[in-house]
Amino acid sequence: MALRRVAIDTYRENVAYLHRECSVVRAEGFQALAKIEVGQNGERHILATLNVVDDANLVGVAEVGLSLEAFAQLGLPEGAKVTVAQAEPPESMGALRRKLSGERLRPQEFLGIVRDIAERHYSKIELTAFVVATHHNELDREEVYFLTDAMTQVGRRLDWHERPVVDKHCIGGIPGNRTSMLVVPIVAAHGMLCPKTSSRAITSPAGTADTMEVLAEVELSIGKMERIVRQLRGCLAWGGTANLSPADDVLISVERPLAIDAPGQMVASILSKKLAAGSTHLVLDIPLGPTAKVRSMREALQLRKLFEYVAHRLGLMIDVVITDGRQPVGFGIGPVLEARDVMRVLENDPRAPIDLRQKALRLAGRVIEFDPDVRGGEGFAIARDILDSGRALAKMRAIVKAQGEKPFDHNAPPLATQWFEVTAPVEGVVTEIDNLHLAQIARQAGAPKVKGAGVDLFKKLGDPVARGEPLYRVYAQYPADLLFARRSCERATGYRIGAPSEVVEVYTEF
Amino acid sequence: MALRRVAIDTYRENVAYLHRECSVVRAEGFQALAKIEVGQNGERHILATLNVVDDANLVGVAEVGLSLEAFAQLGLPEGAKVTVAQAEPPESMGALRRKLSGERLRPQEFLGIVRDIAERHYSKIELTAFVVATHHNELDREEVYFLTDAMTQVGRRLDWHERPVVDKHCIGGIPGNRTSMLVVPIVAAHGMLCPKTSSRAITSPAGTADTMEVLAEVELSIGKMERIVRQLRGCLAWGGTANLSPADDVLISVERPLAIDAPGQMVASILSKKLAAGSTHLVLDIPLGPTAKVRSMREALQLRKLFEYVAHRLGLMIDVVITDGRQPVGFGIGPVLEARDVMRVLENDPRAPIDLRQKALRLAGRVIEFDPDVRGGEGFAIARDILDSGRALAKMRAIVKAQGEKPFDHNAPPLATQWFEVTAPVEGVVTEIDNLHLAQIARQAGAPKVKGAGVDLFKKLGDPVARGEPLYRVYAQYPADLLFARRSCERATGYRIGAPSEVVEVYTEF
Repeated sequence: MALRRVAIDTYRENVAYLHRECSVVRAEGFQALAKIEVGQNGERHILATLNVVDDANLVGVAEVGLSLEAFAQLGLPEGAKVTVAQAEPPESMGALRRKLSGERLRPQEFLGIVRDIAERHYSKIELTAFVVATHHNELDREEVYFLTDAMTQVGRRLDWHERPVVDKHCIGGIPGNRTSMLVVPIVAAHGMLCPKTSSRAITSPAGTADTMEVLAEVELSIGKMERIVRQLRGCLAWGGTANLSPADDVLISVERPLAIDAPGQMVASILSKKLAAGSTHLVLDIPLGPTAKVRSMREALQLRKLFEYVAHRLGLMIDVVITDGRQPVGFGIGPVLEARDVMRVLENDPRAPIDLRQKALRLAGRVIEFDPDVRGGEGFAIARDILDSGRALAKMRAIVKAQGEKPFDHNAPPLATQWFEVTAPVEGVVTEIDNLHLAQIARQAGAPKVKGAGVDLFKKLGDPVARGEPLYRVYAQYPADLLFARRSCERATGYRIGAPSEVVEVYTEF
Repeated sequence: MALRRVAIDTYRENVAYLHRECSVVRAEGFQALAKIEVGQNGERHILATLNVVDDANLVGVAEVGLSLEAFAQLGLPEGAKVTVAQAEPPESMGALRRKLSGERLRPQEFLGIVRDIAERHYSKIELTAFVVATHHNELDREEVYFLTDAMTQVGRRLDWHERPVVDKHCIGGIPGNRTSMLVVPIVAAHGMLCPKTSSRAITSPAGTADTMEVLAEVELSIGKMERIVRQLRGCLAWGGTANLSPADDVLISVERPLAIDAPGQMVASILSKKLAAGSTHLVLDIPLGPTAKVRSMREALQLRKLFEYVAHRLGLMIDVVITDGRQPVGFGIGPVLEARDVMRVLENDPRAPIDLRQKALRLAGRVIEFDPDVRGGEGFAIARDILDSGRALAKMRAIVKAQGEKPFDHNAPPLATQWFEVTAPVEGVVTEIDNLHLAQIARQAGAPKVKGAGVDLFKKLGDPVARGEPLYRVYAQYPADLLFARRSCERATGYRIGAPSEVVEVYTEF
C-alpha cells in the first residue's frame, strides 16, 4: 500500500488511518483501535493504533495514512510502498498484565516495558494502564530502583568526563519557584560543572525552560550545549532535544491529563533524567505546605528516603532538602514575570523578592558544599558573596549570550496588555495562599504559552492588607483568557485574610 | 466556527479536529489531547479530545471537525455555527482522583463517574485510569454494589410487567459455549418469559449474538423485540440497540485492548445489564478450569459470593453454578460451526455434541426451577422432555422466523473455503486442551468477522488418538488469515497428549 502523511497531531500516540473499504481492513477484520504494524521489507516498521476512515480524500483504499509523529518515526517518503499487518502485541504486555494483577516485576521486565514505551509500541490505553498500575504504593522501593535503572538505560546518556557534575532539582508544585536560574550561575561562577537541563511546564504556568526562554534560546543541540558548558561551566537548556529518558516523555503524555504524580514515578522520572544527563551530585528540593505536592512532614520524609535509596543504588550522591512550600516563591507567576524577578535578584535590585533570593542562596550553598574543598556550613556564605559581588550576574549574562540572547529589560518587562486586579475583601493579614489556585489562574490567563501572561503577587504570607487593597494582578493577552481567569478569581481569590496568629506554619529545614 | 464531519472512526472516544492556525487554538494555547467543549447556544454540547491538524483540506481554520460518533452525538448538521471552548474537567474527576489514591467512593461518586462515562465526557486516558484503578481488589463488595447500581441507573431500563423474568448468563472464556441458544427455546417452551439479549464477541471468536446472526437477524428495535417476546415468551437479540447500561459499552472499549476482566467490573457489567433488561431471576454460569477465566475453586467461590451479595442488594434472584471449563464446549468454534452444533442438538441429530446438550439441559433445568410450580430437582427432566420431544426446536424455529430467518442447513454449513488440519504428534489420549490458544487460533483465522471461519474440534478430553490423526481443522476465508492461524498452530497446537491418568480433572457441581 502507498504511504501517506496525514497532517494530524496525535501527540505521543502513533495513529494509522485506513479506509474502511481497503482490502486489509476487510480481509483481516481489523477493528478501530486495533494495533497494526506498518513497515517495509521487514526492516523499518512502526506500531500504530488504527482509526478507520470513511472518506477517500483523507486516505484512499490503497493507502495507509500515518499521523505526524508516526510518519516522522517511520522515516519513509510519501507514496513509499509499505505493508500493513496485524501487530503482535508488544513483547512486554505479559509483564504489564502481571503488574495489573498486583505482582512484583523483575529488572528485565521493567526494561522490556520501558523499551516498548520509548519505542512507541504502547497505545494510550496501555500507557495509562502502566501509569495507574504503578501509581499509589503499587511499586516497592526495589521496583522503583528497577524502573529508574530501566529508564536510564533506554535513551542517550551524557558523559562529562569529570566529577562532580552537579545539579539541583525541585519536585515542583510551587509557582514562581525559579531558583535554578540563580543556582546555576552561582555554582558555575564557583567553578563547578552544572549542565542544567530543564523541562517546559507540564501542568504548571511556567517551567524553568519557559522562563529562561524569555532571556535566551533554550533549544540547544547537544554539541552546542557541550561547548557552552565546557566554556562557562554551566547552561540553562531545555532537556527535550537531548533525548534523555525518552520513555519519560511518553509517560508524561498520559500523566499530564490525569494530573498524576505518584512517588515512585516521580523518583524514577527525576533520577533517570539526572543520571542520563551525566549528573553525579544532586540537591533535591521537596517543598512542604498545605497546597504543595507534599503536605505533611511524614510524607516528605518518606519521599526523601525513597529518593535516597534509589539514588544510592544507582551511585548518585543526593542531598534532599525539605523547604517552605506554603506559598508561591517570588512575586511573579508566568515566564516574563518570573524572568523579571530572577533578573532583579541577580542585579541586587531593591525590588527583588527576598524569599526567592534566600532560597536560591541556600540551595546553591548546598550544591557548593559538594565541593570537597568547601567545609560544611560554608556554602551559603560563598553563594552570597558570589551573588552580592555581581559574579553571578556576569555568569548569567555570559550563559544568556552563549545560548542566544533575547532583548529583555526587567524595568520594562513585556507583559500581556490586558489585566485586572483582585482586592482584599476585609482588613487583616494574609494567612494562606493557595498554590494550586494561583497556578490555575495563571494558566487560564495564558501562561506559559503566552509568555507575558500570568499573576503578579503584591502580598505574601503575613503581610497586612487594608480592605480593598490589591492582592495581585492578572495579566492576559486575549479577552477569552482574561474572562476565563476572572471567572476563577470570582469563585475563589486563592487568598485567606485573618489574624496574625492564623498564618499557617510549617517546620522546614531552612 | 463551522461544524464539519470528519469521516474518522475513533471508536468510543470523541475526537475534535482543529487547525493549528485557527484562532481558538492560537488564542487559548490549546495543546493536542486537551479536552474541549463544542456546542451551540449553551444548549447542545459535547466534550471531545483535541487533535491538532495542519492540513486545511481536512479542517479549515474557521472549522471544527468531529469524528463520526462525536458528530452523531452532537446531532447538528454540517456547517452549523458552533462555539469551541476549553472544557472544564468532567465533574467526577475529583472522585476519579480519589479512587486513584486508593480511597473508597460513595454511591453518588460512582453515579457521577458512570454518568460522565456514559455521556462520553471521559477521554481514553481517563477511562483507562478508572478501569485500572478499580481493577484487582481495589473495589470492596459494597463499592461493587454502588457501581452496579450506578450503571443500572444510567441508561434505559426495560419493564416486562410480570415476574419472573428469567435469564441465563455465562461469565465467558470458554469457546463454543453456546448454551443460551438452547436454554432460551427450552425455557420459553416451558412458558417462562426469557427476553435474552446477548453481546457480540469482544475478545472471543464468537458471542451468542454473532452465532445467532447466522440463523436470524439479531439487531432488533426495542419495539420488535417486545412484540416477539410477548408472542413467543423468548428471543435471542443483540443487546446493543437497547442502550442498556451504556457506560458498560464505553468501558469495554478500553477493557478489550487490555484484556482486563476484574471481578468487580465483571459483576457490575453483567448484573447492570441484566437489571436494565428487566430480569428478575438469573442463572449464572462460572466455568472452572486451568485455562478458563476462573482457575481455582477458591476463586470461583469468592466470585460466586460477590455475585450473590450484589444481586441480593439489588433485589435480583440469582442461582450461581460452577461448571466444567477445562475445554471448549461442543465441537465448533466460530459462528457457523457453533450454529451447526446448536441446530444438531435441537434436532436430536446423532452428530450433536453431547457435552453441549448436557450442559444446556442442566442450566435450563435450573432456570425452570425458578418456576414456583416446579419442585427442586425436577427441572432437568422437564428440560430434557422439552428438547427430546422437539418442542425446543419448534420454539427456536418460531423465534428465528419472527426475528428474520436466514437460510441455514446444518448438514451443509457455509464454512470458509480454505482449511488445514493439525494432527497428533504422538499416540495417547487427550489430556489438556487450551481454551485461550484455540480461541486465539479461531480469531486469527477470521472469526467472528468471517462467520464461516474458526476451528472444528475432532477430539476432546479423554479421547484416544493415534499418531498423525487429526485433532482439529482450521477454516479461514483469506490466505493471510490462514497463514496467521497456521503460525500460531506451529508454535503450539493447544493440545496435550498423554496417558489416561493424566487427564486434568476439576470438581464442579455438574
